[in-house]
Amino acid sequence: MKLNIALLAGDGIGPEVVDQAVKVVNAVATKFNHEINWTSALTGACAIDECGEPYPDSTHEVCMAADAVLFGAIGHPKYDNDPKAKVRPEQGLLKMRQKLGLFANVRPTFTFPSLIDNSPLKRERIEGTDLIILRELTGGIYFGERGRKDDGNTAFDTCTYTRAEIQRLAKLGFEIAMTRSKKLCCVDKANVLESSRLWRETVQDMEKDYPEVTVSYEFVDAVAMRLVQWPNSYDVLITENLFGDILTDEASVISGSMGLMPSASKGLHTSLYEPIHGSYPQAAGKDIANPLATVLSAAMMFEDAFGLHAEAAAIRDVVNKSLAEGVVTEDLAGTNKAYKTSEVGDWLAKNV
Amino acid sequence: MKLNIALLAGDGIGPEVVDQAVKVVNAVATKFNHEINWTSALTGACAIDECGEPYPDSTHEVCMAADAVLFGAIGHPKYDNDPKAKVRPEQGLLKMRQKLGLFANVRPTFTFPSLIDNSPLKRERIEGTDLIILRELTGGIYFGERGRKDDGNTAFDTCTYTRAEIQRLAKLGFEIAMTRSKKLCCVDKANVLESSRLWRETVQDMEKDYPEVTVSYEFVDAVAMRLVQWPNSYDVLITENLFGDILTDEASVISGSMGLMPSASKGLHTSLYEPIHGSYPQAAGKDIANPLATVLSAAMMFEDAFGLHAEAAAIRDVVNKSLAEGVVTEDLAGTNKAYKTSEVGDWLAKNV
Ligand SMILES: CC(C)[C@H](C(=O)O)[C@@H](O)C(=O)O
Ligand SMILES: CC(C)[C@H](C(=O)O)[C@@H](O)C(=O)O
Repeated sequence: MKLNIALLAGDGIGPEVVDQAVKVVNAVATKFNHEINWTSALTGACAIDECGEPYPDSTHEVCMAADAVLFGAIGHPKYDNDPKAKVRPEQGLLKMRQKLGLFANVRPTFTFPSLIDNSPLKRERIEGTDLIILRELTGGIYFGERGRKDDGNTAFDTCTYTRAEIQRLAKLGFEIAMTRSKKLCCVDKANVLESSRLWRETVQDMEKDYPEVTVSYEFVDAVAMRLVQWPNSYDVLITENLFGDILTDEASVISGSMGLMPSASKGLHTSLYEPIHGSYPQAAGKDIANPLATVLSAAMMFEDAFGLHAEAAAIRDVVNKSLAEGVVTEDLAGTNKAYKTSEVGDWLAKNV
Repeated sequence: MKLNIALLAGDGIGPEVVDQAVKVVNAVATKFNHEINWTSALTGACAIDECGEPYPDSTHEVCMAADAVLFGAIGHPKYDNDPKAKVRPEQGLLKMRQKLGLFANVRPTFTFPSLIDNSPLKRERIEGTDLIILRELTGGIYFGERGRKDDGNTAFDTCTYTRAEIQRLAKLGFEIAMTRSKKLCCVDKANVLESSRLWRETVQDMEKDYPEVTVSYEFVDAVAMRLVQWPNSYDVLITENLFGDILTDEASVISGSMGLMPSASKGLHTSLYEPIHGSYPQAAGKDIANPLATVLSAAMMFEDAFGLHAEAAAIRDVVNKSLAEGVVTEDLAGTNKAYKTSEVGDWLAKNV
């Protein structure tokens, strides 16, 4: 196959980890006889520095022309934590999500047997955890009307959802559930919010189209608890944008393998694959960052975007092999030898 | 002192656990020479059954006339999880919060050395945790305009905050921080929400009035992570209503002592004290529920509402003694003898 991939390395450790994924993807392409056409484009703080814009039009065009986007991470301390700053890297993120129509963020949380002791949870709590949170990504309070009144002394934000937006996300949830244990949990706050009641109503109406799927409805506060208590009791969860923001991050730390968790954002125009970790500026340029989450995101890309399952499996296998043989960066090395980011990438590419 | 306390036992195990707190409070009153005047009133599902209303006016009058309110729990399966039900127990909760002006929910999370192994977290993660989350309770998306448009196919909720509402909550946060380690964390989503930007701005403006307090600002998704990773790195956190709903519940399960966690809701007209656990209908009437969270809520009441510190300390001491001597309900008994709810209450009252 000929595959056009847009490469948005971003800020901080983004470029380093993306480089390793490129090596692995190229190796897989050679092995399976694909031709990859990479196109790099700027996003995040580095795009602000260069173009005054975190998601420039030129970058958007590259993404629109691509079969998939491989993304690193964005964010830089000089723009961070300053809500009053005029241009901020995360605005690029939101603009990109909206313009590419990336309506569904797919966030798996699973464990690696060899890393389970890194979890803040006790082994018996986390063992067997393998869940997916599907976060709606282009609606809700992130994109509703907001502003000030009363000379700036009152502020408001609006959470809006349409039935169609909910159906689109829920459909994907049902479909994913059908490929797994056929359990779907709809997370909302229907005891308070009207938008949540529309979520619940819409999902309830869809149940008849997926008679094999068992659907449960839980309040977001209850889920925030159970994710810590019995994460292995969940399978596929669907939820709106803001709840998803909080719950996916909460879920990401329970596995003890945050540095390894990939994600996908499914779009109307293209789909995007990225590690869930941030740009980790303190480590940038040091060749120490763990590239495995980005490499595993590339595996998700092969599977989801291109339907190439053997290629995805080859990547996952070589990642497992690197873990088993201790070819890992310092965050996972413990008292053993730590490999450099680039060394891990080279090893994976060679052994794939 | 003469103390007027409104008693809202509520549903499920509410009446049983409240009964034990009454025994202990009466014993403390005898010991310290106070006169307690208890007035009971209906709330929750039992109030719906009797008056068609989860928070009847008659109950409101009892609360308004009281120096403090001791609350059990509300919620009953027959009204639960049905967002379309006309009257629901939780509407009573929201009405009560609004009519009593209960603007600040104070939720401590701490550990008991003897119970630390009940935590889903590893010992080294949870040890030393002693934090307070201050949740704004009468504003935000809970009480904003909401509704449907487009023939019911679009739903919206509005999150609104005024500077004055934020100041009121933050002031309490600064004051509590001054009595502790002088660390305050403001939790928001100021990278996305306008209401969060007003929160951050308002708290930043208040910093100069509390020069000894070190204030940090963190995004809600980051806090959802750090609460699981390093809960002992937090001290006092302040946040808006919905974030507080999620984070206080998340925090409640990390200690492993959920059945023991008390809470206070500070109001304009009176204050309310309640265990953080729910009405646990499965256990209702069985005399097995753990009454300690309600008893410790009574301790908070003595301290916060009446300024009676020795009385509060006496209650906490006898609770610790019951834990040390194993006079506990089945949830804490392990393989040892389990005491009945009423036996624990009797023992506490006798030994206070
Ligand atoms: C940076 C921020 C706007 C973003 C979000 O809230 O969506 C981030 O937290 C994420 O989850 O990707
Ligand atoms: C029952 C519900 C409305 C309520 C809330 O969301 O405030 C509950 O979850 C709580 O935290 O007291």
